[in-house]
Amino acid sequence: MIKVILLGSGNVATHLFQAFSKASEVEVVQVFSRTLSKDFPESIQTSDFTQILEADVYIICVSDNAIANVSNQLQFENRLVVHTSGSTDFDVLDAKNKRGVFYPLQTFTKNKAVDFKEIPICLETENAEDYAILEKLAKSISNSVNKIDGKQRKALHVSAVFVCNFTNHLYQIGNEICKENNIPFHILQPLIEETAQKIKSLSPQEAQTGPAVRNDSKTIEKHIDFLTDENQKEIYKILTKSIQNVEKL
Amino acid sequence: MIKVILLGSGNVATHLFQAFSKASEVEVVQVFSRTLSKDFPESIQTSDFTQILEADVYIICVSDNAIANVSNQLQFENRLVVHTSGSTDFDVLDAKNKRGVFYPLQTFTKNKAVDFKEIPICLETENAEDYAILEKLAKSISNSVNKIDGKQRKALHVSAVFVCNFTNHLYQIGNEICKENNIPFHILQPLIEETAQKIKSLSPQEAQTGPAVRNDSKTIEKHIDFLTDENQKEIYKILTKSIQNVEKL
Repeated sequence: MIKVILLGSGNVATHLFQAFSKASEVEVVQVFSRTLSKDFPESIQTSDFTQILEADVYIICVSDNAIANVSNQLQFENRLVVHTSGSTDFDVLDAKNKRGVFYPLQTFTKNKAVDFKEIPICLETENAEDYAILEKLAKSISNSVNKIDGKQRKALHVSAVFVCNFTNHLYQIGNEICKENNIPFHILQPLIEETAQKIKSLSPQEAQTGPAVRNDSKTIEKHIDFLTDENQKEIYKILTKSIQNVEKL
Repeated sequence: MIKVILLGSGNVATHLFQAFSKASEVEVVQVFSRTLSKDFPESIQTSDFTQILEADVYIICVSDNAIANVSNQLQFENRLVVHTSGSTDFDVLDAKNKRGVFYPLQTFTKNKAVDFKEIPICLETENAEDYAILEKLAKSISNSVNKIDGKQRKALHVSAVFVCNFTNHLYQIGNEICKENNIPFHILQPLIEETAQKIKSLSPQEAQTGPAVRNDSKTIEKHIDFLTDENQKEIYKILTKSIQNVEKL
């Protein structure tokens, strides 16, 4: 049985708690939360650093800027303490403990359940001998456990911003254009899903379609004329140019 | 039985042919192709405008710039002729025939099968009385048939560029960053799929996560420093700014 303590009560902590609760080899013995959260049983919550129990792994799931502060306030030494951040080195964690990273590569939103089995978990430990326990913990909830060093994790985090946050923003622009023209946005959903599925069997370069990659300047002109929002026009132009540059390589 | 003739032999013609072949109410009696294509039975192909047969609907599936030319060369009058373009008015078709649009809203790539049942088909006819036959034809292959006027279709086409072509380009950038750091791109696939699925239950604005929407300037700085490609840096900055502008509205 792996005893886990979660430090933090946001989206990542909530989703990890739900996933670990279903894993028979793991027990979440405590959740540290500044204020009482309804997302965890009251009986296991504490807001007092001096009341933190003993556990095999301490997982700090707070905003990147707060990781160092939480780890500094821990009252114990030489235990395994990890954070869940994609863009933070493990050495922001206080060196009094054994350090590592447990980074689930997914977009977490409150009230939107996710299937943890499919979520890649990226692990790094300062000391090789700590890897096995993190790996066992990760495998208890996910089928995709990956040893990823600090530089790779940062690369993944940047990539995730492009393929998730920026992509979602393009969906939002599509949504705005549809709204202005009284078109239900869900009409674009099959296209959105096919675009996401297509790259399972083709590389993104092979999968590219549309006026930019065809160098169809007439359609590109028409689209830019059609758009009334300057910001949308600018994004249209820069991404069109970028697609055309790739094709020239 | 609806008799259909396809004019063109590219991706759209090929996918439509495959879909109509499974529809019991439709017969593709001929395919017009400049050169013999192995994607259609040889017996139904012609490259001679004077040999085109009689049919209920003629579907021109050629590049946008070639639509007018193909429609001008048709040797008959007063029959229903439609194109499949998202960004082209029906009046580029020669007025000697009854005109319309049959626009399947999907990304078609050779050798990548698609399930037509899920593909929205957007219909427009010059004359109200022609709508019923196009609707029957569309319903024979798709569960999503939509009456969409010319301006709406253009809006949809522009939106599709954002949510499909531009999104795919962001996947490509993610792929490049992964490659440079020896990370298998498929590790991002669950995130990509969840991003596409999430907007079925949340609006894109509600679904937004990441450093831009959190105004996490420290992480944004780190990401821009991490990127070595000037083009990627520029796209990162402009999309981050755009996400932050939306949130301020």
